[in-house]
Amino acid sequence: MTVDHGGKARVLLALHQGPRILVLPNIWDPLGARMLEALGYPAVATASMAVAFSLGYDDGERASLDAMIDAIERIAAAVSVPVTADIEGGYAGTPAGVGATVRRVIEAGAVGVNIEDGTFDGGPLRTIDEQSERIRAARSAAEREGVPLVINARIDTYLGGVTGTNEELIEETVARARAYLAAGADCVYPIMLGDLASLMRLRDAVGGAPINVLATTGTPPLRDLEAAGIRRVSVGPGLLKASLTAMKRVAAELLNYGSYDVFTKGVMTSDEARALVRTDRMK
Amino acid sequence: MTVDHGGKARVLLALHQGPRILVLPNIWDPLGARMLEALGYPAVATASMAVAFSLGYDDGERASLDAMIDAIERIAAAVSVPVTADIEGGYAGTPAGVGATVRRVIEAGAVGVNIEDGTFDGGPLRTIDEQSERIRAARSAAEREGVPLVINARIDTYLGGVTGTNEELIEETVARARAYLAAGADCVYPIMLGDLASLMRLRDAVGGAPINVLATTGTPPLRDLEAAGIRRVSVGPGLLKASLTAMKRVAAELLNYGSYDVFTKGVMTSDEARALVRTDRMK
Repeated sequence: MTVDHGGKARVLLALHQGPRILVLPNIWDPLGARMLEALGYPAVATASMAVAFSLGYDDGERASLDAMIDAIERIAAAVSVPVTADIEGGYAGTPAGVGATVRRVIEAGAVGVNIEDGTFDGGPLRTIDEQSERIRAARSAAEREGVPLVINARIDTYLGGVTGTNEELIEETVARARAYLAAGADCVYPIMLGDLASLMRLRDAVGGAPINVLATTGTPPLRDLEAAGIRRVSVGPGLLKASLTAMKRVAAELLNYGSYDVFTKGVMTSDEARALVRTDRMK
Repeated sequence: MTVDHGGKARVLLALHQGPRILVLPNIWDPLGARMLEALGYPAVATASMAVAFSLGYDDGERASLDAMIDAIERIAAAVSVPVTADIEGGYAGTPAGVGATVRRVIEAGAVGVNIEDGTFDGGPLRTIDEQSERIRAARSAAEREGVPLVINARIDTYLGGVTGTNEELIEETVARARAYLAAGADCVYPIMLGDLASLMRLRDAVGGAPINVLATTGTPPLRDLEAAGIRRVSVGPGLLKASLTAMKRVAAELLNYGSYDVFTKGVMTSDEARALVRTDRMK
């Protein structure tokens, strides 16, 4: 192993313990990772949706595990800060399979993972017991590798696959959060849960364990989340969409005999971009 | 071969024959390629600098040939329009090596290549004879594959490695253009030559063969280039820089407890991005 996985995993876990909120603008390639590191970000996270989209595929484990591992490996090799990888549902039908995926992710150089309990495309969530077993398998696999992997357990109750009253949804979320933490998760991630009252209720229900919030339209500001004891915020495909929007603007302009200003004015120079990449040769 | 290389190569070549100028906003991943195809672009080109940078490496053949081929293969598989690949100097010390690279590029699904006569990092250009031999080797390799590969011969006289008066530089460029076309190139690409008078002189000197112009600050507008008989315009790393600038703006904003507006307002939705990707499973 060329990576100090243990040290990096511990650094990543410590970043979840405040006082500063851990902000993770998810990326999908080594350049994005190096840009974040150069700006001073203390850790880097992938977004599975962004990795899959950049490969031309929808998420929902449609990009192959090999392609996902390849991306993680290149990103982890590109930066010295800890890298946490979004691995969707774990790319496996069984807990043992999740463990095998986690082993590959660690070998690729990541020291954290996101694992979700949804089954994609609006399908039902895995049962609490099944998902808890999958998280235990991930934890066991990491222990066998000797790495205190930071497991971020995504809870998909707010993604549309679960119906119920607000009260039922938050109770379901709390139950899942407690179970996943007991199964070995370090952080829970109730994606699309963005109201501060519910987040504080969840925070109290999990005894202050770290919670990951997705930043999107309507999410409380970072300072408010930090003040509420939220430890981690990620943006999912936010950076990818900003990037793709900029690319599309240029492409649409040029298709209609437009101006080069869209990619020459207010845009970094080649030398500024070059400052972000390495000058040795890829092995 | 699952790709109709011959048909695609002929379509790509025909796009160099006017009346409309062929605009190629160079991309580096399948998502960018699919975005261009969805907008109506009739062909897609990679930029080696963008591919290398996205992998975290400077250009100058620092990204491995395997990684470059991998990117080309994924991009070519992602779109139905012709794909032309920037392969820097051909990733080889000898003409036979250039031929071997071209064979791999064709097998990866590309039907066009950019090959440059510079030797990177401000080094000297290859001699006209040596570069002509390399282009002949590329052409022979393509013929052996049965593909009328569209060879775009980049001429690096204006990249700083050649000193001389303006007159000497344009004469050198004309001599190289003629030699490369005679050796089997379909198009010549005097990178960083952007003044219209010189471009028209080159155009007349090559008997109307297609010329590729790099669009950058100060380049004449697309309509003026088209009116002057320029057949092809590419943007090199233009799209990458626009994309990276957008990503950096978001990341810098979030690092300082800023607003989510930078990635939620004026940015495409997840569904709009999802419309660009495929929903089957990667093989």
